[in-house]
This record gives sequence, C-alpha cells and structure tokens, in this order.
Amino acid sequence: MSKPGLPSGTRDFGPEAMSQRKYVIDCIEQVFRLYGFRAIETPALENLSTLQGKYGDEGDQLLFKVLNNGDFLAKVDGPVLNQKDSRRLIPLISDRGLRYDLTVPLARFIVMNRDKIQFPFKRYQIQPVWRADRPQKGRYREFWQCDADVVGSDSIWNEIDFLKIYDDVFSKLNLPVVIRFNHRKVLDAFGSYLGGTENLHRFMQLIDKCDKIGFDGVLKEMDNSGLEKGKELWQFFYDINALQSNHAKMDALKANVNGDFKLLNEAIGDIETILNLTKTQNRISLDLTLARGLSYYTGTVFEVIPVNRADKSGPAGSLGGGGRYDNLTGVFGLKDVPGVGISFGLDRICDMLEAEELFPDIEKAGVTVLICVMTKEAAEMAFELVNILRNAGISAEIYPGAVKLKKQLDYANVRNIPFAAIIGENEMVEKSVSVKNLKTGVQNSCLLNQTPDYLT
Amino acid sequence: MSKPGLPSGTRDFGPEAMSQRKYVIDCIEQVFRLYGFRAIETPALENLSTLQGKYGDEGDQLLFKVLNNGDFLAKVDGPVLNQKDSRRLIPLISDRGLRYDLTVPLARFIVMNRDKIQFPFKRYQIQPVWRADRPQKGRYREFWQCDADVVGSDSIWNEIDFLKIYDDVFSKLNLPVVIRFNHRKVLDAFGSYLGGTENLHRFMQLIDKCDKIGFDGVLKEMDNSGLEKGKELWQFFYDINALQSNHAKMDALKANVNGDFKLLNEAIGDIETILNLTKTQNRISLDLTLARGLSYYTGTVFEVIPVNRADKSGPAGSLGGGGRYDNLTGVFGLKDVPGVGISFGLDRICDMLEAEELFPDIEKAGVTVLICVMTKEAAEMAFELVNILRNAGISAEIYPGAVKLKKQLDYANVRNIPFAAIIGENEMVEKSVSVKNLKTGVQNSCLLNQTPDYLT
Repeated sequence: MSKPGLPSGTRDFGPEAMSQRKYVIDCIEQVFRLYGFRAIETPALENLSTLQGKYGDEGDQLLFKVLNNGDFLAKVDGPVLNQKDSRRLIPLISDRGLRYDLTVPLARFIVMNRDKIQFPFKRYQIQPVWRADRPQKGRYREFWQCDADVVGSDSIWNEIDFLKIYDDVFSKLNLPVVIRFNHRKVLDAFGSYLGGTENLHRFMQLIDKCDKIGFDGVLKEMDNSGLEKGKELWQFFYDINALQSNHAKMDALKANVNGDFKLLNEAIGDIETILNLTKTQNRISLDLTLARGLSYYTGTVFEVIPVNRADKSGPAGSLGGGGRYDNLTGVFGLKDVPGVGISFGLDRICDMLEAEELFPDIEKAGVTVLICVMTKEAAEMAFELVNILRNAGISAEIYPGAVKLKKQLDYANVRNIPFAAIIGENEMVEKSVSVKNLKTGVQNSCLLNQTPDYLT
Repeated sequence: MSKPGLPSGTRDFGPEAMSQRKYVIDCIEQVFRLYGFRAIETPALENLSTLQGKYGDEGDQLLFKVLNNGDFLAKVDGPVLNQKDSRRLIPLISDRGLRYDLTVPLARFIVMNRDKIQFPFKRYQIQPVWRADRPQKGRYREFWQCDADVVGSDSIWNEIDFLKIYDDVFSKLNLPVVIRFNHRKVLDAFGSYLGGTENLHRFMQLIDKCDKIGFDGVLKEMDNSGLEKGKELWQFFYDINALQSNHAKMDALKANVNGDFKLLNEAIGDIETILNLTKTQNRISLDLTLARGLSYYTGTVFEVIPVNRADKSGPAGSLGGGGRYDNLTGVFGLKDVPGVGISFGLDRICDMLEAEELFPDIEKAGVTVLICVMTKEAAEMAFELVNILRNAGISAEIYPGAVKLKKQLDYANVRNIPFAAIIGENEMVEKSVSVKNLKTGVQNSCLLNQTPDYLT
C-alpha cells in the first residue's frame, strides 16, 4: 500500500499550529467585531458562471474546477472530445468551482440578498480560498483570507476605520509593519500626461514591481516600454516617497503642475481627511508608488508590509491589502453599489509570527489536569473527580487505562499538561487524591472536591 | 446578464445565521476542550487516492472530484475518449477530490504524523465536508461535521467520556434527545445463529431501517430475505428494547441462549462498565436494535436522536453518531491502531434548534453603539468617541455620513443596535454627546469620556 500524502500546496494543522492560528484569527475577529462588522460565510463551491471572467485570464486558469457528477461525458459531443481541447471541454463537464477569493462571493451574496440587506452593509468573512498557483514558500493552494468590507457607502470615514483596524490588529500581534495607502485618483490624474489609459495601466503595472526590482529596475522597464513621461513621473513619486512625513508628501504632491486638477483635488481632499483623522496612527504612510494592480479599485488602496524583519529568509510580501471599488456588484447586474474593504492574509501572518518568534506562549496542552489511576477499580472515583473538575470549568481527562504511572506521567509531560491527579490504592482507601504540580514537582494530598483549590 | 445563484445543496450564512452557528459550534467546542480534546484541521482538497475506496461504491460516486489544472486532456489516449466512459476517464483527468468526512483525513493525518503524535491522541475537528448527494430538507452537499476521536486507546473509559460529551452538549443546547448506544459484538455474537456473516450483514442493514419502516416493515423485509432466524432475533431485540431500564435490558439479554457467549460476555462487560459509570446520565439508552450500517465499527456504536419534537415537519434523523473501530489506519498500511469517536451534525442541529425555536436570544446587532453625527465637522469628535468606546471594549461604529438623523436611527433599528450616540451642533459646542437608549427612548447628555457609563 502506498503511503498517503497531501496535495501539493495544502497543509494539515496539528494542535500546536491550530492554537497559533486561532490566536491570530481571534485577534482579527475581535477587532472586526469591535468596529461593528458581522460575520457571514459563503459556500466553498460556487457556480463557475459566478467565478469565471472575474479574475482575468490568469485567474480563470487558476480556478479549481469540479467535475460534474454522474456520467459527465454523456452529453458531450464526440467531435469535441476528439479535438482533445481541454479548454473547450471544461464548460461541458464542469459547472462548479472552488471559491477563489472572498470578494466575488460577497458581490454575489449582496445581489442575491439585496432586498434583505440594510445598507451600509458591514460584513467580515474568514474562510479558505483555493488557487492552482505554483506552490512556493509562503504561497499555498489552499489558504485563508480574513476580509472586512463596507458595502453601500462612499464615505471616506470607512477608510479611516480600515486603517485603524490594520493598526489595531498588528499592534495586538506585536508585528512591526508599515500600513501604506494611496489614492487611485492620484495616478488617474496623470493619465493624459502619460499619454492615455494604456500607458497609465502599463505605468501602474511597472511601479507595482518596485518592491521586487527596485527604483532602477522600474526605471529601466519604463525605458523599455517607451514611457518617457513615465520615467519623469516615477522619479517625482519616488522622491516624494522619500520624504519623512505624510504632510510633507502632501505638500510636494500639491506642488506638481502636470496632473488633472479635478481628480487630484478629489484625491487630496480624501487623503487630507484620512491624515487628519489618523494622526495618532504613526504607522500609516502615504505611498504614492502604490497601485495594487489593475484590479477593480477606484479610490483608496491599502497594503501592509512587514518591517524590521529579524529573519530575512522568511516569507516576504504583503500581509494584507485592499481598497475602494465603485462598482462591486456591476458584474452581476446591480449597478452603483460602492464598497471599500481590506483583507488579512492569515497564512502569511502566521508564517511571519513563527519566523520572527513573535507568537506568545500560547497554552499548548489544551488540558489542565491528567487524572492517573493505578487500578481499574479506581475508575468510579476518577470519573467522580473528572466531573468535579469539569463542572468547575477546568479541562481534565482520565488517562484511559490503569497502566504504569511513569507512562501516564510521560504522556502528561509530552502534552505539557501542568497537573496530575493521582488515585492509587491508598487514595482509594482514604477517598483522597494526590495532586502533583508537574512543573515544580510539589505534591499535595486532598479530598476529591478540594482538588480545584490545589491547581495553582 | 443572468442572475447569479448558488450550486444546489449549498447555502450562504448571513449575520443572523452565523450568530446561531457560532453559538452551537462554541458550545460543542467548549465541551470538547473541557474533556481534553485539541483541534486539528486538514485541507478540503485530498488526493483521490486517499479518498477512493474508503466509503464503498456509493461513496465513490458521491465524491466531488476536482479537474486537474492546465491541459488536462493532453496525456489522455484518444481511444479512452472515444469510448465516452466517464468512470474510466476520471482517474486520467482528476487527481484530487473534496473531503467527504473527517475520519479518513484523520487516519491519513495519523499515518503521516505517527512519529510526532503522542498516543492516546485526542483530537477534535470542526470543518465542512462535501457529498454529491441528492439535496433535500436537512441534507446538504456542503455541510459541517464536528468530530472528536481518541486514537490509540482501547479503553472503554473513552466511551464513557463520549456519552457524557453528548449529554453535556445537548443539555447545554436545551435540546431533548435520547443518546442510544449498542455494542457490535452483541450483534456479531449472533452471526452463527443467523447462518453466517452474509446473513448477519443483511440483518444489520434491515434493523437499521426500523426508524423509517417500523418493526413490521423490518419483519416483512426479513421474510423477503428469507431470514427466518432473523425474524426471531429481531423480535427478541425489539422486545428487550421495550423494557424501561437499561439494567432490565441487560438482564433480558443475558437470559438469551442462542448467541456466541465469548463475544456476548465481552460486550456485556463493556456495557456494564458504561452503565455503571454513567448512572447520572438518564438520557443514555442501551438500544439493541442499533447497528449503524456496515461501516468500520467493531465495538460500541452511538446515535443521538431528537425526542418530543414540537415541529414534526422539521428535519428528522440523527443529530450525531459514532462508535469504536479497531483498525482506523489499516487502509493506509498502519495496523493495530484502535480508535473511538463521535460526530455532531452541525447543520441538522441548527435546523432543529431553529424549527423548535430553541435558539436563545443571541445578540443580533453585533454592535452596541451607533454614533450619529449631524455635520461633517463632527467627524473628529465622532472618531474621538469611537476610540473611547472601542478602547473600553465596547463595539461601536460611526454611521458613515452626516445624513438625516432619521435615516441613521432607522439603520440602528433594523440592525437591532441598542444605543445611539448623537453629536449635533449643540453637542459640538458643548463637547458633549447625547446617548439614546433605542429600546426605551430614554436620552441622556454626557461628556465624551463618560459615554461608557451611560450604556446600560
């Protein structure tokens, strides 16, 4: 029989890893709730018609498609099969796929429930998503997103909450980050200057590469793309970004002479509101080189980047991102629904906390007391004791079997269980229990119902 | 553009449904942890080689299979395609499938991590599973299981914990149930009497139908199957089951003369231990007509059935089940690993609590205070106030926009938010806030930092 394995890019999470993941999820979820967001969940399986065409050609390739059940070939024409054209065959044998992100399912949810939803709708969603990407360090095929969005409100105050949420969560996690933000209208304002939309898009794609290829790399690629004006603008943005304070950056931006002033003024108004109302959040940084791809963003964009990493070999890349989109549900026929949202990459955050040794000393045992019995006849007393402890809210378990005490205590040690409650023959006669602190070795004898008092 | 929809048998969960599901999951999880179980999670995607052949032919049909990515037809031979044989094509175009239950992934996890695991290994797992079953009331294609298992221990004391876990959880949920249990060796003991293994299996399949077709229905099908001795045994078991107390049932069982006494004595020993140590759990009922199919169970079997239902039209069927298996990991080449476990069917439990109106008054708003501002200039005060509240651990949000107060309060009412904190022009001058209890209508004025004291 061959050894069982896991599909590439997927992982199991054992008890210790689960404690760590719960710690991060709880932290994020508590902040979401404190800010008035409520949970929803959507199915892992979505109709392919919902998913396809929403993530670009590359995204369509990366969707996991689920085979139709039963005799899925029955209705497929022979000629189509003979051509061995995988792409053409997919829609004939697969109606469903796995969720690729949490944003398209949110849009579908809103369209389907528009009559029941009270807008502005503030939801969070913490669920796995699947992408058939090439697995590598820090990139998985099954990974978790933690999203929060406000749908149906165009107020810039939402942005302020999201920046504060990022600040609160990463403060709680004790993870040093910079929270970058920008405004797409700053970039859009230079569309004409760059020579039109196509050049603007090329410009945005290139400046997004800066984290990977550096300032000069971007400059070189602008050269290769013939973006002469782009090079100037890139230099302009890059110089501004080198300034220390957000307000200095604003002043420098306002001093420019080439952009569309209407768009720029809209962006500047939003950015100033944000800066005024996040004065105490000193990790928030205006970053004019941030574009966040060609995706559906139309206003602010956000990105969280780790800083001062001790382990440079560890996973890099952003720990979260998001932004404003004016037309979330347009793809499903519902127009003019604006939204803004952010996402946390749970797996990258966990990898980072692990690499930087920033996980707190999470309670690993998951249980406080191991009850050890030396004879089968002690079972009744052991179950009486375990009831007393559990009724007092203390997690406890009986070692299943009256085996040698050493074996039972070894089990307690490996599992980091802090206390053993031992019932031997003497204890049975005396109706008592010996409570041993497994860290200090101190042992006390007490009556069964006094046991909770001895667990400190 | 066509309206988006959901794949058949899948569901969205909005904020209210999520509160209910969290209530049930928290209840189950707290009990699992109190009993010393720790969480693990496994991926939704498993290799088909892990899943296939583990759930019988029918199970293989119900697996959701995931199409290989890329040009999946490239390596498929023309002749295979020409035959249009869906079954033969599957292994050529699909390597992975969706998790069908949590038991096979547990077995795989144990085999892959056997060197790291300290046995007995007590894990719980709360995750969705997928089955391409025909959807109907109370049966979904994507549904959640909540499993707990002890692996690597053959002690009957584990069974006692599981029966108590069922009792604790359904007590907490205030859901009237009977917790049935039986011992497979009671049935196995009558194998020779029935005429061999094949007859025994047929007998077990038929008695499992009793909930659906009743005593007479089972009797009739035994007749059709030519199980003459089966009819007698069925009458014998059925009569015993009619007895009031578990101990009376035991006495009647012991008085039989037809079974294999070695097997019967083993079963009786286990059952007596269970009955002795669960005396205070009066919802636990020995049920000699319980078989739980032909699955891998080899010892005790459990099943939880709702009783005294007010809404008879609601979902019926078991709310949970489980049992002991002597050879969990044998299918993956690791012999002699015994285990015992139980499962809760989250979706059926939620459906039942909803139908019986047994959900407690779960806090629906998810947020305590809505801050309403009457002018844009109040934003700074509003963000100051929202910080004060959140720092005090009180969930709060600012209505995003200085729209008419009525619209803001309507939003609060629909969302069941209990308090509004209003900042109008007067309040801005006085640096105060008007706190309104939206249930009673009582309104108070206070300073910003006094607000938390007025939220009662």
